[in-house]
Amino acid sequence: MKLSDLGENRVVAALTRALALGADVRVGAGDDCAVIGRPRDARWQLLKTDVVIEGVHFLPGDDPRRVGWKALSRALSDIAAMGGTPQHALITLAAPPHFEMARATALYAGLRRAARRFGVSIVGGETARSPGPLFLNVALTGTVERTRCILRSGGRTGDALYVTGRLGGSRADKHLDFIPRLAEARWLTENFKLHAMMDLSDGLATDLPRLATASRCAFNLDESSLPKTKGCTVRQALTDGEDFELLFALAPRHATALEAAWPQHFPRLPLTRIGHLLPPSALRPPPFPGHDHFA
Amino acid sequence: MKLSDLGENRVVAALTRALALGADVRVGAGDDCAVIGRPRDARWQLLKTDVVIEGVHFLPGDDPRRVGWKALSRALSDIAAMGGTPQHALITLAAPPHFEMARATALYAGLRRAARRFGVSIVGGETARSPGPLFLNVALTGTVERTRCILRSGGRTGDALYVTGRLGGSRADKHLDFIPRLAEARWLTENFKLHAMMDLSDGLATDLPRLATASRCAFNLDESSLPKTKGCTVRQALTDGEDFELLFALAPRHATALEAAWPQHFPRLPLTRIGHLLPPSALRPPPFPGHDHFA
Repeated sequence: MKLSDLGENRVVAALTRALALGADVRVGAGDDCAVIGRPRDARWQLLKTDVVIEGVHFLPGDDPRRVGWKALSRALSDIAAMGGTPQHALITLAAPPHFEMARATALYAGLRRAARRFGVSIVGGETARSPGPLFLNVALTGTVERTRCILRSGGRTGDALYVTGRLGGSRADKHLDFIPRLAEARWLTENFKLHAMMDLSDGLATDLPRLATASRCAFNLDESSLPKTKGCTVRQALTDGEDFELLFALAPRHATALEAAWPQHFPRLPLTRIGHLLPPSALRPPPFPGHDHFA
Repeated sequence: MKLSDLGENRVVAALTRALALGADVRVGAGDDCAVIGRPRDARWQLLKTDVVIEGVHFLPGDDPRRVGWKALSRALSDIAAMGGTPQHALITLAAPPHFEMARATALYAGLRRAARRFGVSIVGGETARSPGPLFLNVALTGTVERTRCILRSGGRTGDALYVTGRLGGSRADKHLDFIPRLAEARWLTENFKLHAMMDLSDGLATDLPRLATASRCAFNLDESSLPKTKGCTVRQALTDGEDFELLFALAPRHATALEAAWPQHFPRLPLTRIGHLLPPSALRPPPFPGHDHFA
């Protein structure tokens, strides 16, 4: 059996099944970040690792500054999805020996720019020789107040489902320049009691079922309401992936307050109600296959 | 200018120069781990990232269980070198789509075995598609009492220099099965006031000058005293690399007590005094070029 036969969800599930976890691990593999701390601590630590690979997540001709920005921003998006604040990053750069130092410097310039903008300290940088493509791994820590830590698994039947921004078409351009939704997530968790949240990395068609499954719910998706990137079809909005927008679930009684307050604070970023969570008996398969890393 | 023209030391130094660091960063890039915490905190956090790459750190035919063991143990060795205790690990596995699931499972079996033995929780596992070789990145956190945190930079003129174990020949076999010196480092920092410590990853000829330079000292190395692996020459002991033994500096007045107590606690692991630190005016180049990842 090859990884491509199983698909990413089942590969990760099989590899991380029944890992022995210490008493201070609140959430292990399976959410956007790991969550560390004792049950009553005021703050918990968030841990995330994420890699971008030449030929998979970016192309050899892409501007290395934008690749560096993307590498850190992907991990930042996961910290945002937990409601957290990022803190410290460690960088692993594996590059071929003939790689130009100017390109490595430009990669780091992009990493530094994202770090500065979002208040991250880059506290370690390892380099290794790659006999193949360029690999750029980011390990990132963050912190979150216990009461504002939002998992994928807290959604409840009837919750309204929202996404920020517009979906689809990211791979044409936006995937190298996206803004991780840290400010939006912090505002949301300060002002509303979200039940579940995640970031959209593999496309709504893949990620919404993940949130619903983690919450032991089914879902209804109103495809006509989808906030599509200009020029994109519904299918593209569902399956292109790399949107790095927030998907979250909120009790419907708070929907009116949220929809009134959001545009006051984020006038340039759409917030769209796209459906709601259903009782688990209503389970149905997702409408389209989403992005799978091994497909 | 290519990475291979500069060499690893200068590449890392150039990329990590003048990184903006938060007030809670005690040590950034340049030591075995990053150190996070406020100056008077009783405990500090340690952060490390480390990668093993097929064709560089292991061969395609190597037993994947041993590769997994090595991947985690390399990072554990860096936690040991700070005097710390490991806590949480995040794994990034980038593998080609045709990679067999049984091999991925075996890699994880090796990771789990090292995690269980050294008290680590694996709290996250990401997989990605690699268009080239297998990459296995480990991000690891740890903790250390402030008073037992040992940097590379604290060595003083006259300090005795010690190494654990035997050096050289690791690449023949030991590099896949080595034991990170966590127990030894914890015992050392509990019982002795070490001035500086690091782990030997690139060979003593590369790593000893790093410790001496960080401590603003020169050094004397008694090559006739080197604890060589059976069958190895002095040159191999100095330059083979991947020993993953501890190198540390201690005030010479404590040498007798250390040499008397060590064999009581670690009867099967040699501890060898190999030289001492000198005033910086005595600076001289290392005797042999050590291992360089881009060479």
